[in-house]
Amino acid sequence: MQYNAALTAITSPPPNIKTFSQSTSNSRCDHGDDIDDIGTYDDFHTIDWLREMSRNRLRHRQIYQSTKESCFDKTKSWHDASSGWILVLLIGLAAGALAGIIDIVTKWLSDLKLGICSSHFWFNQASCCWNSLSPTATATNCSDWKTWAHIFSLSSTSPQSMYAFNYVAYIIIAIFFSTLAAVLVKMFAPYACGSGIPEVKTILSGFIIRGYLGKWTLLIKCVTAPLAVASNLSLGKEGPLVHISSCCGNVFANLFPKYAKNEAKKREALSAAAAAGVSVAFGVPVGGVLFSLEEVSYYFPMKTMWRSFFAALIAAFILRSLNPYGSAHFVMFYVTYNRPWLLFELIPFALLGILGGLYGAAFIHANLAWCRFRKTSRLGKYPIIEVMFVTLITTAGSYPNPYTKIDASTMIFQLVSECSPYVRNNLCDYSIEVSFDMLSMYLKMCGQITCFLAQGVNVTNIHTAPVGVGLQTALSQLSIAFIFKCIITVFTFGLKIPTGLFIPSLGVGALMGRMVGIGVEQLVNRYPHCPLWESSCHSGHTCITPGLYAMVGAAATLGGVTRMTVSLVVVMFELTGGLQYIVPLMLAAMCSKWAGDAFGREGIYDGHIKLNGYPFLENKEEFTYTTLADDVMRPRRGDAPLTVVTQEMTIGELDNLVKTTKFNGFPVVSSRDDKRLVGYLYRRDLILALDNAWTNNQNVNRDCKVFFTLNAPTLSGMSKHDPTPIRLFNIVDLSPITITDHTPMEIVVEIFSKLGIRQALVTHNGTLLGIITKKDILRHIAELSGEDPDHIMFD
Amino acid sequence: MQYNAALTAITSPPPNIKTFSQSTSNSRCDHGDDIDDIGTYDDFHTIDWLREMSRNRLRHRQIYQSTKESCFDKTKSWHDASSGWILVLLIGLAAGALAGIIDIVTKWLSDLKLGICSSHFWFNQASCCWNSLSPTATATNCSDWKTWAHIFSLSSTSPQSMYAFNYVAYIIIAIFFSTLAAVLVKMFAPYACGSGIPEVKTILSGFIIRGYLGKWTLLIKCVTAPLAVASNLSLGKEGPLVHISSCCGNVFANLFPKYAKNEAKKREALSAAAAAGVSVAFGVPVGGVLFSLEEVSYYFPMKTMWRSFFAALIAAFILRSLNPYGSAHFVMFYVTYNRPWLLFELIPFALLGILGGLYGAAFIHANLAWCRFRKTSRLGKYPIIEVMFVTLITTAGSYPNPYTKIDASTMIFQLVSECSPYVRNNLCDYSIEVSFDMLSMYLKMCGQITCFLAQGVNVTNIHTAPVGVGLQTALSQLSIAFIFKCIITVFTFGLKIPTGLFIPSLGVGALMGRMVGIGVEQLVNRYPHCPLWESSCHSGHTCITPGLYAMVGAAATLGGVTRMTVSLVVVMFELTGGLQYIVPLMLAAMCSKWAGDAFGREGIYDGHIKLNGYPFLENKEEFTYTTLADDVMRPRRGDAPLTVVTQEMTIGELDNLVKTTKFNGFPVVSSRDDKRLVGYLYRRDLILALDNAWTNNQNVNRDCKVFFTLNAPTLSGMSKHDPTPIRLFNIVDLSPITITDHTPMEIVVEIFSKLGIRQALVTHNGTLLGIITKKDILRHIAELSGEDPDHIMFD
Repeated sequence: MQYNAALTAITSPPPNIKTFSQSTSNSRCDHGDDIDDIGTYDDFHTIDWLREMSRNRLRHRQIYQSTKESCFDKTKSWHDASSGWILVLLIGLAAGALAGIIDIVTKWLSDLKLGICSSHFWFNQASCCWNSLSPTATATNCSDWKTWAHIFSLSSTSPQSMYAFNYVAYIIIAIFFSTLAAVLVKMFAPYACGSGIPEVKTILSGFIIRGYLGKWTLLIKCVTAPLAVASNLSLGKEGPLVHISSCCGNVFANLFPKYAKNEAKKREALSAAAAAGVSVAFGVPVGGVLFSLEEVSYYFPMKTMWRSFFAALIAAFILRSLNPYGSAHFVMFYVTYNRPWLLFELIPFALLGILGGLYGAAFIHANLAWCRFRKTSRLGKYPIIEVMFVTLITTAGSYPNPYTKIDASTMIFQLVSECSPYVRNNLCDYSIEVSFDMLSMYLKMCGQITCFLAQGVNVTNIHTAPVGVGLQTALSQLSIAFIFKCIITVFTFGLKIPTGLFIPSLGVGALMGRMVGIGVEQLVNRYPHCPLWESSCHSGHTCITPGLYAMVGAAATLGGVTRMTVSLVVVMFELTGGLQYIVPLMLAAMCSKWAGDAFGREGIYDGHIKLNGYPFLENKEEFTYTTLADDVMRPRRGDAPLTVVTQEMTIGELDNLVKTTKFNGFPVVSSRDDKRLVGYLYRRDLILALDNAWTNNQNVNRDCKVFFTLNAPTLSGMSKHDPTPIRLFNIVDLSPITITDHTPMEIVVEIFSKLGIRQALVTHNGTLLGIITKKDILRHIAELSGEDPDHIMFD
Repeated sequence: MQYNAALTAITSPPPNIKTFSQSTSNSRCDHGDDIDDIGTYDDFHTIDWLREMSRNRLRHRQIYQSTKESCFDKTKSWHDASSGWILVLLIGLAAGALAGIIDIVTKWLSDLKLGICSSHFWFNQASCCWNSLSPTATATNCSDWKTWAHIFSLSSTSPQSMYAFNYVAYIIIAIFFSTLAAVLVKMFAPYACGSGIPEVKTILSGFIIRGYLGKWTLLIKCVTAPLAVASNLSLGKEGPLVHISSCCGNVFANLFPKYAKNEAKKREALSAAAAAGVSVAFGVPVGGVLFSLEEVSYYFPMKTMWRSFFAALIAAFILRSLNPYGSAHFVMFYVTYNRPWLLFELIPFALLGILGGLYGAAFIHANLAWCRFRKTSRLGKYPIIEVMFVTLITTAGSYPNPYTKIDASTMIFQLVSECSPYVRNNLCDYSIEVSFDMLSMYLKMCGQITCFLAQGVNVTNIHTAPVGVGLQTALSQLSIAFIFKCIITVFTFGLKIPTGLFIPSLGVGALMGRMVGIGVEQLVNRYPHCPLWESSCHSGHTCITPGLYAMVGAAATLGGVTRMTVSLVVVMFELTGGLQYIVPLMLAAMCSKWAGDAFGREGIYDGHIKLNGYPFLENKEEFTYTTLADDVMRPRRGDAPLTVVTQEMTIGELDNLVKTTKFNGFPVVSSRDDKRLVGYLYRRDLILALDNAWTNNQNVNRDCKVFFTLNAPTLSGMSKHDPTPIRLFNIVDLSPITITDHTPMEIVVEIFSKLGIRQALVTHNGTLLGIITKKDILRHIAELSGEDPDHIMFD
């Protein structure tokens, strides 16, 4: 409407300048918001946070100014105020529900590789064998659960051929799952591949990737994530859950105009969604919020944090109500250790941290190299075949080993659990004697057999024991599993199916940690009189918890791969459920980060962001070079002069400008000679405004002059033969961010990352010299750090 | 050195401009850093974060550039890199140790009001009565503990006179403690009064208050905080612990030049210290970090967060090693409830939240009104008498009531604890029967009698019970205590002794919550067939935990008073130690915030910041007005023109400028007529540079011209009779932050709060129009919200 008013002003005397200056006072906000699409962005472009926030405040003001008028307006303003909370509530509900369903489906599909429940085919192995009361839920004494060999009536044949049949069935089913996932991804939603966290991070930093968080991606990722996990590849569904949750955030945000039409507000909802995603991935709401704060979000004001927390909590609560883990706790690997750690144990914990950091650095290098190879070679053209091949290798290698045969989260749970008299597996084969009294007491305490699994029990009274035969076997299996997982994960992360990295990293770390833990335990048992531990370990009692080592190792590798710090410790703290073990976890996280940073400071997600050339300006690291704005701005010395829009250009000239250049915007200066800066004009807005002028006004021709400032000439001052002038000052940003040519780049980077702007204009003594865009800065940083500046692909 | 070089350049040909432009390329950084004190700030002034960070990066670069040279330099750079971690380690150690000592001393002093341990006078009541094995540690059956009436051999007289004697002794000792505290504060460290959080918050936002975090404040606050708590006033030591910890941060920061000489870096250490303070106040490291993030810190980058976490963890660990709470957990009110909450309970929880929010709003209004009265009336002149009087009223009113007689944290612990067969106090007087079997089972489980206190026990099998006589008494005492605490706290917070607000707020809320909880419990018992709870509460079993209500109520009032959100929930979550109860806590915190915000959005700390006129620019709330930079900048229309420094002013003119004006800085423009902006000059730097010129160079006289830019005339271009020119371009900031006059104030506020600048220059088409300082913005906000703009007192 306002735009039309400006156009009709062509034939009527212009309004009083003062009045106009008031009505257009929010120059940043209302430049032509009335033309549809003005203020929106193209795909693969960066948003301007300052501008978006201003637009939001304008919208907010408009709603509240009209509140007094009618009941409808009041409802509208109430709806507007509450829509933020409603939105995060919806996100929380959806994330929790989806995570629960995905968990249940994954468990069932996973077990389907091994066999099927004859009585209730929709039961997974644990549910099927529930009545057999086996605490570890192994299939040994469960009659309802049939392996494929049983189903196909091969039980009369030799055990070897049964084993072979099951082996082959396992591989075939796994390949079927992963191929199905790859086909679905390729056909319906190519964006559903990968973990999604690098892209979500880039989107949250202000980049537009249309469809990345769309309905199709959501649907396909929900379907394929369980398939991918069930195919026993070395991947997890926790990273994809963050992507899925973010998709929910985007889909729901589109229901509320406040969020749908404003990219900055939408990102607030996405931050909350990411928090909810991690919250349900591990059942850790506080950790989820801190993960969103530390790793994913770019701007995370307190208000968003509070809402994220709400979303994370609702999501965790819903997940708990669905109870996919079948225990009283809604945490994935909830364990309570009863033994305090000892001071000397800080040495192995620090060692684990360093090993985790080294693993992380090695993994990042290897995986990035492989992904680069995939991108540049012919391999990238056959994603489905690649998935099939990797699945074949993975399943063929993992079936014979009991620790890789089961799904990774069960393996991690076994590794981090404490040994108790009721855990009957090789890891706890210490040949210990248990009195019936203790057993009955435990039973009284717990009421249910499952609580042994979930809570761990007090085993301080169990005698020390040497390694049993079972544990020896287990140790060799653990080391094989460790090496196998280390290698295969490099080739798995980056396949064109949903691939999360949390679980494989935690798994590698838990394997490493458990082995170190058993080593330390045996060391203490064998040399009980070493001064390091003699005072704390009473003879006849073991004082080492190998499960804790597995937990610490898992934290260390995850830290090494992702370079998380605070959120890592909080997640692990919530998983272990006790402040007591936070010191070892913190130590491991610190050592891991230091060791990893020695070989390159970027985590795997940052590495993939760089690999894909996304325009992500790091806001957590400092810029340490000494260059000036002068050195970065365009045009460089020798380049063609800066393309500017001056006052009094004609429509024809502007049309040419738009057609012959590709810049995203043009500085507006007072005249071609005296380049005093007036404002900034977005290309997209200019095109829309020109189109609008052509369409809506028949007097417009190519010779019409266009005025961008308030002091345009009045009609009375013009001869009648001049073409009618057009006023477009409502699309000019009269308050562009400017810096001087002497500004050090460290400050420029600070301004860009803190204010979230897309470009800044460079002046010297008030005269326009050039322009710096986010892309220029990223290219400059790449140049300075010796990388290829052309890998920054997008504006 | 560089400054001298610039001065000697007067008599020698100037260096090549290009070279110079390179060497002074960091115009923001090195303007005369070589003159001592250049770049420092006066007391009660605001720092410029951008400038401080630049100075730090310059220093960093200098150290690392020289690293290659010698072994000494290498050690220096290593020391520099590690000093951050060493500093936070020291802060953590000191905060933990001080908190432990203060806890122990407070407990002892507190009990001293009631009596003394005859066998070991340095024992508090609990330690003294340890051997009597009374689980609740009441003095009933403890022979070593003597009340004052016993000590003075009044045991033969009537119980009434003994009671009266103890009563009077209690009051006298309390008044002695509080008076001593007030005298110490008045004589040695006036800054040690209050909670300190508003001031720490202001300091962290970039304000300088010399001595506020000094050694004396630290010492006196450490001594007086236990005295104040022990005098049974309605205050806590938790807020003061944040101040004490921040003092430690400041004192230790002064040991490291990296932090001592840079106000921005120092604030990183202070943020970590604040986190450590809350961490030890409640034993909640994660909550401490989030409190620092949400409530206290202004800039909290990830790196600082990680270090804060480290400091908080170390502090909590040290505190735990000192073990002042005498239990296995190092958390103040650690409780584990075993009963799940029911869905219908969300109604009373929400109610508690609303009540808490209303209490908070009422408290803030009343307390601020009282503090304003104290400031403006004669009352403020007699702080010691005021303290004595309030102590008299408090102690006289609290002795007869068992819930106010004991110290507040013990009371809170009693209120939030679950009833079990082994807790023998009025609150649990339900006349229940206990089988010996259960007792022995519990004993086996716990091993120690204290675990009943610390962990709470499973009481799901205890039958429902109506209110006993004891509980009826307790209820009336609780309600009296509630009203008394509500009123007296208003007059206590703001006394000139260390006064924390956490414990009184939690106390009020716990009293309220427990009463509501008992009410709901009795409701359920009396009407067991109400459809709301019939399905979840099996007959014969109680299903309500009044202790949980006390916890929720405590969270609600604390939320209402401080308006904390995420950190509040995380602190309470860490205190209850279970994710299960996070939903009720979150609900209460949300309702509390909404209810409180309806009566004013500022929390108690923000209220006190405003009351004291500190220049604190809120960075968590949005600016919602539609004014432009034009409306805020100085000079206003009709004012005298802006005082500027031009090129080619003489020393005499500059001297006059400094003497006749009080501005903190001056814009440098190209000439008086063509006000194209060149840079910005800090008053303090200018004075120092002029003084330096007078002292070090005898050729200088008042007619000497001063040049501020690089294109100063060379000597060859001047006649020999001209006075020698002086170059001061190394003190000019050539990259001041500029905005246009059309910039909406919402964006200006965003720029100020996100970049932490102190002033911005306003231009129009490249010409300087005016200047906006932080104070101008704060005054503008005050004006717009209808407050007195003159209450912003400092620059």
